[in-house]
Amino acid sequence: MINPKYGGTMTLFKPIDDKKASVKVKKIFNKIKKERKIKVISNFWRTIANDPNTLERTWNSLCQIMRKGALNQLTKELLYIAVSMTNSCEYCIRSHAAAAKKKGMTDKMLKELIAVVGLANETNRLVESYQVEVDDYLK
Amino acid sequence: MINPKYGGTMTLFKPIDDKKASVKVKKIFNKIKKERKIKVISNFWRTIANDPNTLERTWNSLCQIMRKGALNQLTKELLYIAVSMTNSCEYCIRSHAAAAKKKGMTDKMLKELIAVVGLANETNRLVESYQVEVDDYLK
Amino acid sequence: MINPKYGGTMTLFKPIDDKKASVKVKKIFNKIKKERKIKVISNFWRTIANDPNTLERTWNSLCQIMRKGALNQLTKELLYIAVSMTNSCEYCIRSHAAAAKKKGMTDKMLKELIAVVGLANETNRLVESYQVEVDDYLK
Amino acid sequence: MINPKYGGTMTLFKPIDDKKASVKVKKIFNKIKKERKIKVISNFWRTIANDPNTLERTWNSLCQIMRKGALNQLTKELLYIAVSMTNSCEYCIRSHAAAAKKKGMTDKMLKELIAVVGLANETNRLVESYQVEVDDYLK
Amino acid sequence: MINPKYGGTMTLFKPIDDKKASVKVKKIFNKIKKERKIKVISNFWRTIANDPNTLERTWNSLCQIMRKGALNQLTKELLYIAVSMTNSCEYCIRSHAAAAKKKGMTDKMLKELIAVVGLANETNRLVESYQVEVDDYLK
Amino acid sequence: MINPKYGGTMTLFKPIDDKKASVKVKKIFNKIKKERKIKVISNFWRTIANDPNTLERTWNSLCQIMRKGALNQLTKELLYIAVSMTNSCEYCIRSHAAAAKKKGMTDKMLKELIAVVGLANETNRLVESYQVEVDDYLK
Repeated sequence: MINPKYGGTMTLFKPIDDKKASVKVKKIFNKIKKERKIKVISNFWRTIANDPNTLERTWNSLCQIMRKGALNQLTKELLYIAVSMTNSCEYCIRSHAAAAKKKGMTDKMLKELIAVVGLANETNRLVESYQVEVDDYLK
Repeated sequence: MINPKYGGTMTLFKPIDDKKASVKVKKIFNKIKKERKIKVISNFWRTIANDPNTLERTWNSLCQIMRKGALNQLTKELLYIAVSMTNSCEYCIRSHAAAAKKKGMTDKMLKELIAVVGLANETNRLVESYQVEVDDYLK
Repeated sequence: MINPKYGGTMTLFKPIDDKKASVKVKKIFNKIKKERKIKVISNFWRTIANDPNTLERTWNSLCQIMRKGALNQLTKELLYIAVSMTNSCEYCIRSHAAAAKKKGMTDKMLKELIAVVGLANETNRLVESYQVEVDDYLK
Repeated sequence: MINPKYGGTMTLFKPIDDKKASVKVKKIFNKIKKERKIKVISNFWRTIANDPNTLERTWNSLCQIMRKGALNQLTKELLYIAVSMTNSCEYCIRSHAAAAKKKGMTDKMLKELIAVVGLANETNRLVESYQVEVDDYLK
Repeated sequence: MINPKYGGTMTLFKPIDDKKASVKVKKIFNKIKKERKIKVISNFWRTIANDPNTLERTWNSLCQIMRKGALNQLTKELLYIAVSMTNSCEYCIRSHAAAAKKKGMTDKMLKELIAVVGLANETNRLVESYQVEVDDYLK
Repeated sequence: MINPKYGGTMTLFKPIDDKKASVKVKKIFNKIKKERKIKVISNFWRTIANDPNTLERTWNSLCQIMRKGALNQLTKELLYIAVSMTNSCEYCIRSHAAAAKKKGMTDKMLKELIAVVGLANETNRLVESYQVEVDDYLK
């Protein structure tokens, strides 16, 4: 759609709903619903579904990386939130906070997580500002 | 020290060793040594000691925030590392990885942490790139 | 609150108003009102008040760091704004611009500040892109 | 305008429309309209027009940097988008995606661009997380 | 290795050479050598090989994303460099600049790329600093 | 230079010295020397001189933006340092700290600046983490 006054065009992608989804996308949506035990796919998956390869790759990476390993699933969600807060990604903060709550995150845990994120961001900058040299024993 | 050729001056701060430390700084160094059961203060504390207020405030914040609460100390160290990796702070990555190891972090845990950090940084950007809208149920 | 359709839960914190505030929080709110000569606490303090320790620590740090020293209070507010612009933190840009105006920042000063922020962000990236080596006289 | 209840003042700048524009600003607006073949100036130029020097300098830099050279104009727009996605700048993503579409960017190209941006952000963090050393042959 | 004086432990991972590589890692190294027509694996792959899953996933993602599509391979490398410059990742700047050169990037192209990266980083901050509102026609 | 073993090529730019400088570059180097009252050009200017347009544009922007206006030159240097610390740009931190010292920055001022940078980076993240809403009076 072109707006001749500005010479502009609408540019970004809309979420894809179940009806418009291709066979490949529908198949992945069904995997997500089954694995997550949910009935409605969230905007993240619907929107990246505009590129079925990215949808598939991201879902597969997520399944492989976020499953229980040496770290449990809750800890992994907390790490996800901490990174998303540092990057100021509202969507990821909200969606992974929801996911973490389902895995047992309490409000008290979230508040402590935020305090650590705040402190780490402060000391990261202190280190750069003072140009602190790496100690020999840390190399 | 002025280098007249460049018109430049050396500018940043050097780590403060025990001998040059003021009474206030020495007192905090002693607290750190006692609390951490170490004999030598690392460059981070020695360098920010150029500003005794920052040294004191940072040490007090760290003690308050990183102690066991709803989250255990190891989880807090892992979060610290995840933030530091996202901010590319080598010193903080190395020093908190050392701290986390003392609290039980295994190599396998660190590798899984890194995989989460990588994935979160990727999907944070996918969300921004596709301008994914926050779902109503997440607001 | 659980939305069974999505399996989601609302997750983040609401601002705390005077009525719901604990004794500890109320005490700090009163300090802020007195110090700032205001009648209504802003959303920043109300929201981080969900974690009274974070509220107290942040208020104390702010008082210690932002008071007149070798740098005057206006210069410190300008620095705060410059960091917040670099981190794209709308709330902090707006609230510290308001604070700076009360301390004497004119529109002309804000425009010049923004020009410096823009230029510094550009040249920071030029340095990284060209991998400029630190001159000997700067070490 | 001062709100005495909060002690606050409205702080940031409004877009400047054609009527309020100074002679210098009007002249640059006309250049933009002519060069871009558009009738209405977008909010970016109208807002930075609060500082006519910044408006002039930015427009001149843009003309010099974004014109066809060893890289064609479309490639330059794609690079602009990739940086803006990495910095989470919604305005710049949307406006340069519109500009790129006018220069021939297809939806398929934009999706591939986003996939590269996601991957690069992931591997950038893997490099920092693992503290990968630069190979000798790359120095 | 523990240094009792500091209470520290060496923490991060060393690159894995061909001799120490597991069967799975060796197989992927061979794929990389064949695909890239090189005899020696670079530090990036050797270091992330400490986590064979991450090695495999990253290599597969890279092959899928960076192959010729609607964008050619050179353009994709240029986008990779632009992101890496914005994130200040020296390793990725150097390695992808080397890769881009093999695909035809000239010095002139790299200089123009850097100019775009610098400008985009500046205007991204101008947008945030002035809090420019998204025009209706861009939504 | 190609290293056939790795298939790599050396890629980035070297600083340009007075002898190799083109007429255009030499002219700008002379302006810098005169304006700055220095005898040797620093690596930043020598390296970006690989692209004479970038050299000229950056020097002109710097002269226009960093000259005394509503803000004095020292305050502008302090803002530059604060941005560079937030972006972890060692070169810019060091070179602008040197420039600020020549304009009157004391060690005490630099320490206070760093404390503000640390605090702002912490509270920027607290705002994002708690998703603090902008107060009506700030809009």
